[in-house]
Parts: sequence; structure tokens; C-alpha cells
Amino acid sequence: MSGQESSLVTLGLDLGGTKIAAGLLEGEELLAFVERPTPRGGAAVVRALAEAAREAAAGRPVTAVGLGTPGPLDFDRGVVRFAPNLPGLRNFPLRARLEAALGLPVVIENDANAAALAEHHLGAARGARHSLFVTVSTGIGGGVIIDGRVHRGAFGQGGEIGHLTVLPGGPLCGCGNRGCLEAVASGRALERDAAYAYGRPVPVPELFARKDATARALLDGAAGYLGQALASLQKVFDPEVIVLGGGVALGGGEAFLRRIESAYRAHLRGWRRAPLRLARLGREAGVIGAALAARLAARS
Amino acid sequence: MSGQESSLVTLGLDLGGTKIAAGLLEGEELLAFVERPTPRGGAAVVRALAEAAREAAAGRPVTAVGLGTPGPLDFDRGVVRFAPNLPGLRNFPLRARLEAALGLPVVIENDANAAALAEHHLGAARGARHSLFVTVSTGIGGGVIIDGRVHRGAFGQGGEIGHLTVLPGGPLCGCGNRGCLEAVASGRALERDAAYAYGRPVPVPELFARKDATARALLDGAAGYLGQALASLQKVFDPEVIVLGGGVALGGGEAFLRRIESAYRAHLRGWRRAPLRLARLGREAGVIGAALAARLAARS
Repeated sequence: MSGQESSLVTLGLDLGGTKIAAGLLEGEELLAFVERPTPRGGAAVVRALAEAAREAAAGRPVTAVGLGTPGPLDFDRGVVRFAPNLPGLRNFPLRARLEAALGLPVVIENDANAAALAEHHLGAARGARHSLFVTVSTGIGGGVIIDGRVHRGAFGQGGEIGHLTVLPGGPLCGCGNRGCLEAVASGRALERDAAYAYGRPVPVPELFARKDATARALLDGAAGYLGQALASLQKVFDPEVIVLGGGVALGGGEAFLRRIESAYRAHLRGWRRAPLRLARLGREAGVIGAALAARLAARS
Repeated sequence: MSGQESSLVTLGLDLGGTKIAAGLLEGEELLAFVERPTPRGGAAVVRALAEAAREAAAGRPVTAVGLGTPGPLDFDRGVVRFAPNLPGLRNFPLRARLEAALGLPVVIENDANAAALAEHHLGAARGARHSLFVTVSTGIGGGVIIDGRVHRGAFGQGGEIGHLTVLPGGPLCGCGNRGCLEAVASGRALERDAAYAYGRPVPVPELFARKDATARALLDGAAGYLGQALASLQKVFDPEVIVLGGGVALGGGEAFLRRIESAYRAHLRGWRRAPLRLARLGREAGVIGAALAARLAARS
């Protein structure tokens, strides 16, 4: 970022299944951060985003607005194609509606791509040229950053790391295919396998707390597939740093990271490895990344 | 490529395990193409490359020289780290020796990356912004092209598609890890499995010619893993076009491509797909790509 551009005040919005967040980024500093619950339905979501934006800006002039949102996006038209956790936003023209509500142009970005951008420029991958971000939570998402920019790919599917096939013929994934990383290593996959193993529902935090052989086997299984997937990507995309975020990765902390790293190394004998790091920006990553996306778009 | 740069005459060299090739590229036209056997040993290889270069140039002034070579490269130092099919080139300062022999600066590129670049700009992926090239021959290599340039990655490992883990715990690969794409879908892997199934050595061309259930099962197996790997990459790197080259892919032709495509589609239910195409530039891809690499380097 050049000095002139980064001194501009940029608004970042983050639309999640349960929360909406807004933040104001000047240079590398987050001047304001507000959160509120996500309402149901497209029109209500747009109103809530606009209110959060005005609250975060608090009258300061904003030069650019970025919005991070789940779901496969049609970047050209600014439309959310579908978002499983946001009913009512199927094929919704989110960008145009929000631009009308704010009276400002809006840049949209996939939420995982936005977090990847934030960690790349201002978080755990700071200083790298190429980095990979993987978020392990209910599902698994990610972002590929090349030369400081999000690699969206030809169809906007770039960075969908959760859908790498890691176990041919494995469990059915929400995407309709079998053996995706998400289907064997996400929070939902862990809970599916824990419920089967224990015969009752066991949430992920309880799994991390338990010290029995079953919990260990479940976590080693998920960590093994994560390490395998990251090792595969090291040989195709070859990032300089790999950042892990999301509730499951951060909930497991350094201990879970070491399990992932052990599998990652075991799949990279003879190859060079990028360091694995935990994400640093926490719940603010989304708004910071959305603001950075708007700033980068203004530049190009 | 701008008109001015592409009108310059660039020399492309391609160092293979059995053949050395040299070609002269002006604009999009290959003015000359010469081939000779690869001698043993670093010094002899440098002499043969220089002779092939002079023969191809035939006295015309050359503005840039590119060399495609196998093996993991140290791009910064211009050194071939190791190349299984080129004994005597371990940690060999190939670029410096060739520059001394030619009296011209030389740009080196991994041979699969060079072929990827050639197919992207002048072959089967012409017109695409991002493309993926996979070469299936004795081994499996590849190249990732983003915005018209090779993605080398942080450690020069970018595009090593043959080492994606596609079958956890699967056969041991030459790289020392298990279940790599190369270990289950390359020419050598097919011949290993054919020798076991038939109880005698069966070369790949014979496998393609046979119509029995065993040959069909062997080829379907390899095609299945290729399709799975390409589908995984569609969701992370999201190319606009995927190009398949190399002796095994081209030897199998449209029939083998259809088997790969069937697996590729089966792993991409609900996702957008890039078209799969066979490589078009044949044995000239290496020298064309090496010349393009030199041209692009001169530009930046």
C-alpha cells in the first residue's frame, strides 16, 4: 500500500450467518468496530449493514466501502449466488442494494478471501509475497493470495480449499461430492464422527477438552487430513506462509496446530515447507479484509 | 506480448533426459527447430546445448535465450538441484556455464512450466487469463499460469501437480511420499500395475491398444485419479482452461481424455468447470515456452 492510499479512511463490512460487523480502517489502524445480529431476509440485511456502517463511520468521510460475504459470489454482477447460512439471499443483488442504501460504491469479496487478505497484509502472513489462508470452523474455507492480491480464479471459485478431495470415496460433503476436506475435517464433520463414536452429541470444544483415546483419534484424523491438504497445496501453489484461522483451528490452539504440522511434514518429505501459523486478527479479520479489498480495488 | 517485443528473435532451448532441442521464435513463428541426443555429464550437456543453439540461430542475431530444464531448480542461482533423468547435473550451475558458452544472458525455467507457458500463449489455452497445464508421461508434471505468467511459488515448487496426494496411504512415490498423483497415474505407475496384473511387462502403448477388462480397469484407475486431482485444483486455483500434454495423455488421445473428463465431472457436481483440452504444440512446446520465458523476463 502506498502512503497516500493507506491514509484514506475505508469502511469494511462483514456479513456472517449470525453477526454483521463494520469497521473503519485508516492506514493499518482499525478506528472503530461494531457488531450486531444478522436479521433474516435480504432487505433487513441491507438495512442492518447500512446502520452498522453509519455507526462505525460516526460522521467521518469514507472513501471506499468493502463487503465480505459468504457463499459463491458472482463478482461481476455483485450477486450472492447462494449462502447456506443466509436464507433469503439466494441470487440476491447485494452489492447494488447496499450501494443504493449507502450512496457509495461497494466492492464485494468472499468472506474467507477477505480474511486471507487481512492476515496477509496486517496479520500472521505479513511480509510474505504469496500466502494461503485456511479457515476451519463449521465448514472449511480459504483464500489464496498471490503478489498481495486475492486469486479469485476464472469462475470465482479460487481458494475453495475445503473442497479438495482428500479421501476418495469418503463421506458425502454439503457440496454434493465425496471426501472433500470439509467433509472429514470441519467442525461439523468432527461432530458427526464424535456423535457416532460416543453415541451422543459432543461439541468441538468438549472434544478438545477430553483426553481419552477416542477424542485423540478424532482430532488426529481431522488434523491428518488438514496436513495432507496443506502439503498438497504447498506443491502446487507453494505459498511462503500458511495461516490457519476459524473457530476450530483457533479453539484447538497450538496443540491442534502441532498435530496438523506433524501430518503436513509427513506429506512433504524432501520438499520445502512454508511455516504454519495461527491467524492473528481474530473477529476483526473480516472487516479489515473487506476494507483492504476496497482499498486495493480503488488502486487498480 | 506487445508488437515490438514479439518481433524480437528469441532462442528457446529444451533439455530433456534423451533429447536436447533448440528453436528460434520470432513473434508467434518458430523459425527453426533442431534436436540432438542428450550426452552424459554437465560439461557435455552445455557443449551440446550451445551447438544446438548456434545451429538453430544460423547466424541470426538473438536478443534473449531461455532454457527449459527438468528437476527442481534454484531459480535465483540458476542451478539444477537434481534431475533424476540427467545424471551429472546434481547442483550443477547450468545457467552460468551456458551463459559463458553462449556469451548471452540465459533465463532458466522448469520444463513443465515452459510447456505450460507455450500452451497458454500459443497453444490449447490461448486467450485464457489463467490456465493449468498437466503433463502425463513417465512422471507427472505441470505448470500454473496466472495472468499469463508462470506461478513459481515461494520455493520454486509451484505447479508440481504430480505430487498432490490423491490416495492417502497409497503407493510410494519417487519423491518419498505416498499416494501422490504421479504414483498412481503416471506412465511408470501404469506399467507397475500392468506388470502386476498381467504377470509380465506391458508398455503403456500396448495398454491403450488392448481391449480387455484388465487394461480398461488400469486406465480407468489412472484417469479417475487424474480427474480427481484436476477437480480439486479447479476449486483452489480455478483455471479457465486445463491442458493435458505428455506422452501418456497424448498417446491415449480423445478416448483417454474422455475417461479423465468423466471423473473430473463426477468430482465437480455443483461447481463450475474449465474445459479439458489436449496440448497442441507437441515436441516444440518446450523450446517455444523457453523462448517465451526469456521474452517475458526481458519485459519485466
